[in-house]
Parts: sequence; C-alpha cells; structure tokens
Amino acid sequence: MKAFVTVMPKNGVLDPQGKAIGHALGTLGFSGVGEVRAGKVIELELSETDPARAKAAAEEMARKLLANTVIESFKVELAPESQR
Amino acid sequence: MKAFVTVMPKNGVLDPQGKAIGHALGTLGFSGVGEVRAGKVIELELSETDPARAKAAAEEMARKLLANTVIESFKVELAPESQR
Repeated sequence: MKAFVTVMPKNGVLDPQGKAIGHALGTLGFSGVGEVRAGKVIELELSETDPARAKAAAEEMARKLLANTVIESFKVELAPESQR
Repeated sequence: MKAFVTVMPKNGVLDPQGKAIGHALGTLGFSGVGEVRAGKVIELELSETDPARAKAAAEEMARKLLANTVIESFKVELAPESQR
C-alpha cells in the first residue's frame, strides 16, 4: 500500500525556500502570487495491507524521522484504493 | 485561491534522498518499507479566483520554475472549495 507523507513548515515559521520561490516567480513575470510555502512529500511503499495500520505506521515514521515536529506539521494520506 | 504543486522524481530516475530515507527507516526498526521516493510540494497563494485559470497559471509556473521536467513530473491541485 502506498502512503504519502506531506511535511510543511508550521504557520509562523520562517520559510526561506518558499520566499525564494515567490521572489523568483515575480522576476519571471508571474503576478498575483501571494505567499509561497515549500514543503516535502515522501512516498512510501508499505507491505502492510490494512489501511488503518498502514496509516498509523506512516504517522509513526513521520514523527520519528520524516518531520521535525517542532517546526513542521505533517499529514499522511493513503493512495486511492484503485492505486493500492 | 490556494494551489499545491507536487513535484516528484520521474520513474527510473535515481532518487538518493528517497533511498537515504528508506535506509534510515530500516535502521530505526521500521520493517515492511519498500521503495521510498522523496519529492517536494509548493503551496501557492494565488490572487486568481477562476479555478481553471488558477490551475493553468500554476502549471505554467511548475514548467518554468518549480519542476525540472527532464527528471521530474509534477501535478497541480487546487485547495478544496471550502479552503479557498
């Protein structure tokens, strides 16, 4: 089963990468772009077949390794049933 | 309107970051983890209010700046209506 862990900087945490992207979009001529935030997404192929347990495992991985929960928040999504 | 651009390495492209995460999960005692791929997600706050045009603008930004389309694929999603 595939799980996607999305990690974003928490609100209020400085996000220099997002700021740099926003600035670069401006210099490329894109207008109407407000705040930009940059995060990461980790796609995990899990052998667990039970959705609830797969999600719990991915959350545990996010807490222990993938996200720095002091400054980052994360969410776990499982791939739609058709793609499992 | 909020748009999310998700950028992932294309299939077959070496992903050292994903490999490193997979290895680290193994040393932390997580079993049953197969392939791991690491990508990025960019959250854009757009002033455009028309969903179709907002999506087209975000796709243009992805092609021009956010993704390296030689080795990365991207997808654009708009925030659900309730969060716009």
